[in-house]
Amino acid sequence: MKHLLNITDYSTEELQALIDKAVFIISDPWAYNHSCEGKKLATLFFEPSTRTRLSFEAAMLELGGRVISVTGAGGSSVTKGETLADTARTVSCYADVIAVRHPLAGSARAMANSSAIPIINAGDGGHYHPTQTLADLLTVYREKGKLGGLRIGICGDLLYGRTVHSLIDAMSRYEGNSFVLISPKELMVPPYYTEKLGELGIPFVQTDDLDEALPEIDMLYMTRIQRERFEDPAQYEKLAGRYILDAARMKRASDDCIVLHPLPRVDEISTDFDSDPRAVYFTQAFNGKIMRKALILKLLAGKEHPDNTDLSPEGEKLFRDDTLSCTNSRCVCTHERGIRKEFYTDRHGTVRCAYCDQPVTAAKE
Amino acid sequence: MKHLLNITDYSTEELQALIDKAVFIISDPWAYNHSCEGKKLATLFFEPSTRTRLSFEAAMLELGGRVISVTGAGGSSVTKGETLADTARTVSCYADVIAVRHPLAGSARAMANSSAIPIINAGDGGHYHPTQTLADLLTVYREKGKLGGLRIGICGDLLYGRTVHSLIDAMSRYEGNSFVLISPKELMVPPYYTEKLGELGIPFVQTDDLDEALPEIDMLYMTRIQRERFEDPAQYEKLAGRYILDAARMKRASDDCIVLHPLPRVDEISTDFDSDPRAVYFTQAFNGKIMRKALILKLLAGKEHPDNTDLSPEGEKLFRDDTLSCTNSRCVCTHERGIRKEFYTDRHGTVRCAYCDQPVTAAKE
Amino acid sequence: MKHLLNITDYSTEELQALIDKAVFIISDPWAYNHSCEGKKLATLFFEPSTRTRLSFEAAMLELGGRVISVTGAGGSSVTKGETLADTARTVSCYADVIAVRHPLAGSARAMANSSAIPIINAGDGGHYHPTQTLADLLTVYREKGKLGGLRIGICGDLLYGRTVHSLIDAMSRYEGNSFVLISPKELMVPPYYTEKLGELGIPFVQTDDLDEALPEIDMLYMTRIQRERFEDPAQYEKLAGRYILDAARMKRASDDCIVLHPLPRVDEISTDFDSDPRAVYFTQAFNGKIMRKALILKLLAGKEHPDNTDLSPEGEKLFRDDTLSCTNSRCVCTHERGIRKEFYTDRHGTVRCAYCDQPVTAAKE
Repeated sequence: MKHLLNITDYSTEELQALIDKAVFIISDPWAYNHSCEGKKLATLFFEPSTRTRLSFEAAMLELGGRVISVTGAGGSSVTKGETLADTARTVSCYADVIAVRHPLAGSARAMANSSAIPIINAGDGGHYHPTQTLADLLTVYREKGKLGGLRIGICGDLLYGRTVHSLIDAMSRYEGNSFVLISPKELMVPPYYTEKLGELGIPFVQTDDLDEALPEIDMLYMTRIQRERFEDPAQYEKLAGRYILDAARMKRASDDCIVLHPLPRVDEISTDFDSDPRAVYFTQAFNGKIMRKALILKLLAGKEHPDNTDLSPEGEKLFRDDTLSCTNSRCVCTHERGIRKEFYTDRHGTVRCAYCDQPVTAAKE
Repeated sequence: MKHLLNITDYSTEELQALIDKAVFIISDPWAYNHSCEGKKLATLFFEPSTRTRLSFEAAMLELGGRVISVTGAGGSSVTKGETLADTARTVSCYADVIAVRHPLAGSARAMANSSAIPIINAGDGGHYHPTQTLADLLTVYREKGKLGGLRIGICGDLLYGRTVHSLIDAMSRYEGNSFVLISPKELMVPPYYTEKLGELGIPFVQTDDLDEALPEIDMLYMTRIQRERFEDPAQYEKLAGRYILDAARMKRASDDCIVLHPLPRVDEISTDFDSDPRAVYFTQAFNGKIMRKALILKLLAGKEHPDNTDLSPEGEKLFRDDTLSCTNSRCVCTHERGIRKEFYTDRHGTVRCAYCDQPVTAAKE
Repeated sequence: MKHLLNITDYSTEELQALIDKAVFIISDPWAYNHSCEGKKLATLFFEPSTRTRLSFEAAMLELGGRVISVTGAGGSSVTKGETLADTARTVSCYADVIAVRHPLAGSARAMANSSAIPIINAGDGGHYHPTQTLADLLTVYREKGKLGGLRIGICGDLLYGRTVHSLIDAMSRYEGNSFVLISPKELMVPPYYTEKLGELGIPFVQTDDLDEALPEIDMLYMTRIQRERFEDPAQYEKLAGRYILDAARMKRASDDCIVLHPLPRVDEISTDFDSDPRAVYFTQAFNGKIMRKALILKLLAGKEHPDNTDLSPEGEKLFRDDTLSCTNSRCVCTHERGIRKEFYTDRHGTVRCAYCDQPVTAAKE
């Protein structure tokens, strides 16, 4: 696989190899500091994400490579009507690997279709953000010494949080894990994920009570609940306090219950907890940089890998069909001219768009 | 010549030396990868042009140099009312060469007047864009093995397209070339260019029929026809399809008729032609980077060259005259405080502004 | 001291060491060109300041280091509601030193409180801008051979000009200096500074007459008078011309009266004076880069220094008191969630905010 579009592009063996490489880099920071000399990373950030961009750029620079960068749609030829496919072809003339952030689902895949160099999905709208999940996995592994056999609490906005969905996908692949899904009723995880956990026989509970969940979990993944998700502001006010983590509340949790957060946080974790050794969210930011180093090394190594850009996240074969049409307004399909329309049939028989993974309907032509 | 403001700043011998250097770099990509160590390129992009900026930055990084960058007028001290002359003086303290993109004609010349370091014009409004022409020349040379003896088709917006005008200027200097100028009547090349071709005795025809022209040309330079150029949208709709190049239409052309495009394209070349070996527009983007490497090497070599910033594009001597005034609202003259007013008299006796090359009238003072 | 928040953080001995280092760097530009290999500077510019940012970036690159950069509030996670404290913690994972520019007073201090790496204040609103003062000091030292025994003219906006205030603070520490403070009555230096000069027994005069002051000074520090400072535009028009420096006016000054300006200038110094050897404002820009090189070398040297972030600019001890409250709307205190409220009592018994140095009143809780 030349690109990284989604965390499921990698087998658990490939992920473990990245983690092992990352652990080695941490133990010996100078080991690869000339490895990418003469190589260039292009960071194409069509929407702002300072943290992710700086993390990628720091990673490449620490490997001895160089960086060229585009930030903001205004700074891009895209404003002149160029397709992402053409942008990928052109930037292929200037760099050796691309990290792309874009507001539309499937944008990284659209670039991968025409790119001569590896594409890393650095966030495609609310869809995927695999390098965040790489950071999460390394953090759990370094803190717990394992990725399985854990009781995993996930709290906050489980409905829209893409990092949450990727974490469930990723951690479902390790044996012995179970989930405690903590959220207001309005922000429960989509049925797609609970159905999948059920099919896989992975234990999970859903609750709206963080306090009750805290004593029994090995780790807590916190995310932000956004005021904008609630039609009734009063409802938000009533709820918000129940999902704010602070030092007092964390007394209910075990001494080795680590707390992760994809950052940035607003007030969902009180700063009075920051100095607690269980607070690992800033280490997590550091780990993100290290995993990006390991990833760039892997992608630039130039070894042959089986290319699975022709498979869905669940491994179903993609097919082309011009009579079908994706109608998701947040999908790159509905914006990019001349895109190669591809689909797959999921295990329930639903036909989905290969770019945004949403169900499609037959086009009326 | 310390600066590159316009393609005519270089003799055909100097251009050939750049091309030869570029060909050598392509044959041996590592040849100059430490040549610019300790040197810095400043890319000052007061209007967005991702492609050109990334190309310059990639070029400098591949030479072992470093880059500092300003993008967007908002990111500039210019918003605090500083002149381009002062910006050039200050950036001279930080870098060794400047590539500047700016919406006003003559802006690069205004900087060159006060800069201690070489200025490269990376596009000054609709005026000049010489490094694009360098990319075009290398592409023709690599594909055709020569720059003369060619029947050159140029299609699209010949009225406003600055790359078109520079290409005509550049290719007019090689023996045996002839031109087929293909455009809607509304967008024919300005009389300045046809008069010049006539004077030089260079054969050319003007036509609005792309299909008819295709069989007889050795190369086709495509450009975009912008909807905004037409007062009547219906007129645009009627015409647009006639100037879209696709695989079917290109069957009319010879097997070695290469197709260039300065990019970005919108839909004037169909993607169904991209895989045709005659489609060289992405190679052209690659060539642009290589020519910029050759150019930076030349400018930083520090050898003495005759300085011809005191000559017009056609070689006429510049003079100062405070009773004259440029009134072109798209010229840097009418915006920059304290600019050195310079003019020249062209071969027809018309007095023109040295910054924007437009005719001037005596000031009423 | 790990950070540089204000010029008074450094003793005159420390400043002299920086100046000596800078002079050495100028004499031998290659001396430190690999010193920061493997190190990264993060330039976080939440408001535009091209000149300062490019100067920092050029400095780091010339030391062999690398740069990661954020420009514009829009490019920042801050827009997602993150605190500066969290930004500092996260960027600490990516870089080795931070230069921060921000519109709020005390923002650099707010970052220093939580940063694992050195913070350089590259301008916090109208509050401090210590690296500009470093540039000023090196310029005076190189041109005059000393920092004391000088009659120092300062002209323009003495009320709001932060570089002016820092220069007074800095030059007050050298023996034998005296000041000629030249401004319209509307823009006289705040009483805080004249009182301080009085207490220190440093001679000064205040005048609105530049022409009268010129013959008697050893150096002139020019700053811009902004039209917006005047309620009555006619009043501005009447005054403006009196504070514009040109070649004719400078005939009144001595042959070795150097002229400095923090740049960018608009029209307060005529370009007809630029070629005069007494005009050192562009050298000053160059000197700024060199002092930033010396500063980065100092901060990254990793030697132990006494940490005086717990002292006020005048050396008073900071204390915490939750019953007090800073109400300055331009201070980071009134914007940043969960900030550590700190204060000090100045030599007149006034309690001031440690972030913006403004007097505070007891909070009504």
